[in-house]
Amino acid sequence: MEATWYLTPEDLDAIELGANVLGTGGGGNPYPVKLYARELLKQGKRIAVLDPLRLPDDALVVAVGGMGAPTVSIERLIRGDEFLYAVRALERHVGRRIDALISKEIGGSNSMRPMLAAALGDLPVVDGDGMGRAFPELQMCTFFIYGLPAAPAALCDVRHNVVLFDEVRDAVWLERLARAVTIQMGCHAAYAMAPWSGAEIKRTAVLHTVTQARRIGTVILEARRRQEPPIPALVAAHQGRVLFEGKIVDVLRRITGGFARGEVTIEGLEAYSGQRLVVDFQNENLLARCGDTVLCTVPDLLCILERETATPINTELLRYGWRVVVLGFPAPVQLISPEALAVVGPQAFGYDVAYRRLDAASREVA
Amino acid sequence: MEATWYLTPEDLDAIELGANVLGTGGGGNPYPVKLYARELLKQGKRIAVLDPLRLPDDALVVAVGGMGAPTVSIERLIRGDEFLYAVRALERHVGRRIDALISKEIGGSNSMRPMLAAALGDLPVVDGDGMGRAFPELQMCTFFIYGLPAAPAALCDVRHNVVLFDEVRDAVWLERLARAVTIQMGCHAAYAMAPWSGAEIKRTAVLHTVTQARRIGTVILEARRRQEPPIPALVAAHQGRVLFEGKIVDVLRRITGGFARGEVTIEGLEAYSGQRLVVDFQNENLLARCGDTVLCTVPDLLCILERETATPINTELLRYGWRVVVLGFPAPVQLISPEALAVVGPQAFGYDVAYRRLDAASREVA
Repeated sequence: MEATWYLTPEDLDAIELGANVLGTGGGGNPYPVKLYARELLKQGKRIAVLDPLRLPDDALVVAVGGMGAPTVSIERLIRGDEFLYAVRALERHVGRRIDALISKEIGGSNSMRPMLAAALGDLPVVDGDGMGRAFPELQMCTFFIYGLPAAPAALCDVRHNVVLFDEVRDAVWLERLARAVTIQMGCHAAYAMAPWSGAEIKRTAVLHTVTQARRIGTVILEARRRQEPPIPALVAAHQGRVLFEGKIVDVLRRITGGFARGEVTIEGLEAYSGQRLVVDFQNENLLARCGDTVLCTVPDLLCILERETATPINTELLRYGWRVVVLGFPAPVQLISPEALAVVGPQAFGYDVAYRRLDAASREVA
Repeated sequence: MEATWYLTPEDLDAIELGANVLGTGGGGNPYPVKLYARELLKQGKRIAVLDPLRLPDDALVVAVGGMGAPTVSIERLIRGDEFLYAVRALERHVGRRIDALISKEIGGSNSMRPMLAAALGDLPVVDGDGMGRAFPELQMCTFFIYGLPAAPAALCDVRHNVVLFDEVRDAVWLERLARAVTIQMGCHAAYAMAPWSGAEIKRTAVLHTVTQARRIGTVILEARRRQEPPIPALVAAHQGRVLFEGKIVDVLRRITGGFARGEVTIEGLEAYSGQRLVVDFQNENLLARCGDTVLCTVPDLLCILERETATPINTELLRYGWRVVVLGFPAPVQLISPEALAVVGPQAFGYDVAYRRLDAASREVA
């Protein structure tokens, strides 16, 4: 398969930033992964990105990434080769060569982890992913929402312990079993999931999101370079909408069931003076409301960015005093079908609110 | 491979009782498993037992059993086919046929679980096991003590979720990862472990322990039938030693780290009048002391039996008032080498006591 493009170190910087915006507060910080990827480019390795539309129907593709707690993966160094090691274990198990890799979630660090396996294994990364953003659980990706099998999947840790999920009832069972293994592996493990065909990837993936992450990052970086305000450039380039501007005045946080849950309260500044916005999060930002009015919910993207630099602020880093802009971006179409909303809509996260697309009028809480 | 003998329903009754004695208070109750095995015999299935000395060196053997909490496996019905299902998953993964099955522990319910897979899959069960008794963790078996590999291994649950441990650093890692998966599977899972060669089994297994369990059960059942006291018959038939006789006057119990830990205090009767014996347990009985004198420790077998009927009393069933006899049996030679004592000796369980074989003189606590 012919690569569409080879990543440069500048691409890596832009993708890092764009993936962090698309992480909507979660997904983990791609920075340490980018450092590995940059090092591999320095060593002469290449990371090929492949347009999914050029993927042969019978190609074999696996989703590669990391499972665990974002707070752990910031501090705990990876080995670097565990992603490819998981891919190779899966290859041996199914007795076929894998042709290409794809990210399960473009938001956060899983955007770049497939690139490490790609560089080491000389395999292309498909320009697309299974979320178009970040979500906290495995089953919340379009591959599973649209019926692709969840097994076989492989998990590998820094010690090269390898666990294969050979048969699982569904993606929820994969999430449950793999999560338990990941915890024992030290809250961080590399996965390679369920060889799917090129045809299946084209049918289910959110397309061209590596390009999208690069574009978002590039827009911000270029505005900063030109010393122009990056937020308006970002909103224009990405069909976003400014929902609020203000100062963080309260953060409520609890870690339950392995997730960082909580809410952040932002007091309006300038045009939003006198108003308060509350954003609920569970790893990712889930819902924004202003009084009784819900402004934005999952699966639409809800991003809290530092006001001057457009630096995305992950939910674990939210703290008193920061001046922020809250942006909303409409979810990719693959996430707003009835099947998708059943898994990633506001009700799936426990809210008694129907999903209404961001560009629709705001509405009352039910 | 030619079977040494085919199990009869009477054999199953005797093995159930004998395995319960060899369980030394733990290992789970084989009764529900026996009911399944008996049903399979009624349906015309056969359970062949194979003398390990007739096992070809290049035969492929897997250990089959159940992982989980004994208290759960008493109440939660198994599916019946999950043991064979795990064997078949392992066969597919390694791409070779399995020739025979073996029990990891003859003490308790794992004595009989390989028999279910044997009956359904028409595979012989090797007359031997990896403990000659019961122990709480996977790595405490002679297969691992004497260096056999711990992977690949398969776990299967009642829903036919199948997890393969393809590469693990050692048996302790297998225990850790498999335990976490088992908990998610509902605290009970069937395993098939690490195809080993016939030569490896002959070198590491405790031999002829299915026969031994049957003999112990038969001795007790025949004594009961003749209305003679079964304890002396058992002691004579099995080189055991009566350590104490008395009434249970106290049971201290706590469930920590997934294990039933505690101690039982027995007040002496007749020849033991005026003395008190304390038995410590962690799933299995670990150590018996009378004042400062340690009478018996792991890996020697320490069994608490109901006084009149010689019914073994599992640690989770110990209660005030029962008249009991405490028996000691010397451990199989495979458990008393320096390598073995490092894993299953009293110090491995946290006691500052050197192992001295049961027939040696009793000694002071350090």
